[in-house]
Amino acid sequence: MAPSAIPSTAHDGEQDLDLTSSAIDHRIAESNHSNGHVAEPKYDELDATKISYTFTKEPRDVPAPGVTSLNGSTICTDHMITVKWTAKSGWETPELRPYGPLTLMPTASVLHYATECFEGLKAYRGFDGKLRLFRPDCNAKRFLMSSTRISLPTFPPESVEKLLLALMAVDGPKWLSRERPGSFIYLRPTLIGTHAQLGVQAPSEALLYIIASYMPVMDSPAGGMKLHTSPNDMVRAWVGGFGYAKVGANYGPSLLATQEARDRGYGQILWLYGSEGFCTEAGASNFFVVWKTKEGKTQLITAPLDDRLILDGVTRRSILQLARERLGDEVEVVERKYTIEEVMEANSEGRILESFAAGTAFFVTPVSLIHHREQDVEIPMGKAGDGGAYTLKLKGWLRDIMYGNEDHPWGVVVQEEQ
Amino acid sequence: MAPSAIPSTAHDGEQDLDLTSSAIDHRIAESNHSNGHVAEPKYDELDATKISYTFTKEPRDVPAPGVTSLNGSTICTDHMITVKWTAKSGWETPELRPYGPLTLMPTASVLHYATECFEGLKAYRGFDGKLRLFRPDCNAKRFLMSSTRISLPTFPPESVEKLLLALMAVDGPKWLSRERPGSFIYLRPTLIGTHAQLGVQAPSEALLYIIASYMPVMDSPAGGMKLHTSPNDMVRAWVGGFGYAKVGANYGPSLLATQEARDRGYGQILWLYGSEGFCTEAGASNFFVVWKTKEGKTQLITAPLDDRLILDGVTRRSILQLARERLGDEVEVVERKYTIEEVMEANSEGRILESFAAGTAFFVTPVSLIHHREQDVEIPMGKAGDGGAYTLKLKGWLRDIMYGNEDHPWGVVVQEEQ
Repeated sequence: MAPSAIPSTAHDGEQDLDLTSSAIDHRIAESNHSNGHVAEPKYDELDATKISYTFTKEPRDVPAPGVTSLNGSTICTDHMITVKWTAKSGWETPELRPYGPLTLMPTASVLHYATECFEGLKAYRGFDGKLRLFRPDCNAKRFLMSSTRISLPTFPPESVEKLLLALMAVDGPKWLSRERPGSFIYLRPTLIGTHAQLGVQAPSEALLYIIASYMPVMDSPAGGMKLHTSPNDMVRAWVGGFGYAKVGANYGPSLLATQEARDRGYGQILWLYGSEGFCTEAGASNFFVVWKTKEGKTQLITAPLDDRLILDGVTRRSILQLARERLGDEVEVVERKYTIEEVMEANSEGRILESFAAGTAFFVTPVSLIHHREQDVEIPMGKAGDGGAYTLKLKGWLRDIMYGNEDHPWGVVVQEEQ
Repeated sequence: MAPSAIPSTAHDGEQDLDLTSSAIDHRIAESNHSNGHVAEPKYDELDATKISYTFTKEPRDVPAPGVTSLNGSTICTDHMITVKWTAKSGWETPELRPYGPLTLMPTASVLHYATECFEGLKAYRGFDGKLRLFRPDCNAKRFLMSSTRISLPTFPPESVEKLLLALMAVDGPKWLSRERPGSFIYLRPTLIGTHAQLGVQAPSEALLYIIASYMPVMDSPAGGMKLHTSPNDMVRAWVGGFGYAKVGANYGPSLLATQEARDRGYGQILWLYGSEGFCTEAGASNFFVVWKTKEGKTQLITAPLDDRLILDGVTRRSILQLARERLGDEVEVVERKYTIEEVMEANSEGRILESFAAGTAFFVTPVSLIHHREQDVEIPMGKAGDGGAYTLKLKGWLRDIMYGNEDHPWGVVVQEEQ
């Protein structure tokens, strides 16, 4: 029984078939055709230039390098940004204020109906002393898409970029010191439904907030990342679902399988899809394989976006672009559906060269093993054991852009306060 | 491409195939085989008898009949119950305390990863003056199942039943007055991951809380409930997913299609599944049809539970049981997959007798229309226009049990404080 599209009947009308996409279209890309012109998309207005500043009176100490949590809680910087929204009045003035707890009524929408979405990106202290964000425009646009998908308000994506820069302008100098080049901080824009009304309905009050936190370096686990394919009775995302959106609903339900896999010594689940067993994501990261085709071509392969099963990762798309630009002569870059059986077969024929997971949290993490139905696929980890040659090349190029070794339009410099 | 089970390979081991169900088994039904005995399932200990009481110093006024919200917020009673949990120390002592806001860190798991689940049940002021809950044991058990599915802690389900009774014992006399027999209050047990740590992992801190709120009567909309079948590009739940669990992740993602349907004048979505278009749920309620089979039998039909797509509704199972016990001579009661095409065909042959949605919020609400791909199925609403004969019979029997007109083990009397 496939939850795929219901086939059209003779009397299908377009409006019936496009109920959801038309909802997204209505909300995000509603165009103004007056005067014969197609105007810019209309979003709820959010003016990031009007931000108000309330600085902390209790500045906290910056933790020692490598310390990311305190008493089991993530360490955040001194400030956060909050912006309230109501259906009646739209977005209020953004506030930069001391980091601290949120107050929510027990009936708040987010606590019952998962009306929530988020983004994750990092700020990097460059070797040239500058502080950079990596392609924040991509995160801001995806944040808008996720918000729309989960029935939260719209906003001009540029406003979120500006708020990210504003927070880092204030907290960057202290929390990501020039004395620690090559380090990063993790930024988490979040949008939640705060409307204190029970009942399954789109919330008419919401809160957008941005926090900046420490996070461990996770891209080089000893021995590489070990994956366990998803259990037979568990599907992460499905066609017609929301696997492509960064909404909370994609994460909580995946924890049970992930915990079981961890108890068995694996780092993440390799999520398969369909009776064919298509490879989709590794944990919450995109998944890549470098293999030789049967014809002997070297190929970098990853799952495609078109069926909306996987996240359109910023690291993923950056890797694909760099690989096409810089490895195009030697490596064929392919986005297509491919199955775990293809991976198993390539393995048995000695054609697997490398594999890695890619995302903001895990950056580019080499994969050393895939466990599938009592069989192991062991994947070469390169001469030094820290990843294959292409994996390390791509990782190095990205790192150079993030930390300013290479001047590149993807690195957006923060104008810091001091 | 079907997200159904990955077919077994020759080397399948049971432990691989049952990763998820084994996780649930491990967590809920872990048995102690020592001494050759199979012991009771082990849950995290939660002693509801040790509840501490802190009464409000600012009692609020009970709203006029029919008033359920104030300034757009749900009106709750004077008190709520909260119980904190940590992985390290388990459940703390339950507290009954004044209703009020919760304090959560911006990094709290529930706000990012939808680590949340809930229950919904009502307390009924009987015509005999007594206050009753309806089958609270069923809700408590389902709450445990949902919590386990979303990687939140376990608890003995009886403890939640006791907490529900404790809250109603205190707030029942004032908020569901003996002067208003035939009225109800809505109880919402909720469990959220409060762990203030970013990162996709099972939370190691959680909060269980129970609130009691007013809710409109929704079971008799003028002209009946009108349904719009789900859009072609949208699937609510899928085999291998979590449609059977009352987790937040089932609700937020459904809002977009629901809002579009409402904008077009329909009350809820009739969620179809698969290329076959199986009928599953009506909004967040179970869905029933009464029709004549081609052979002329009168049949009450609803979707089955076995593929775990739909919620195992307490109202649903009560209706099925009452129908089998009391209508068995005249109505065949069937739980099986059936398609929207079967409904359309029955309609064109004049075989549709009645239809209704059933759940705690909507109780038993007659369905008058299903709009599918530009075609309307109009459903008889009975002589008085308030529902078909079987719909009203079932609704009446349930109401009699809820409000004490019929003495029945499903009605659990609250021992009130005054």
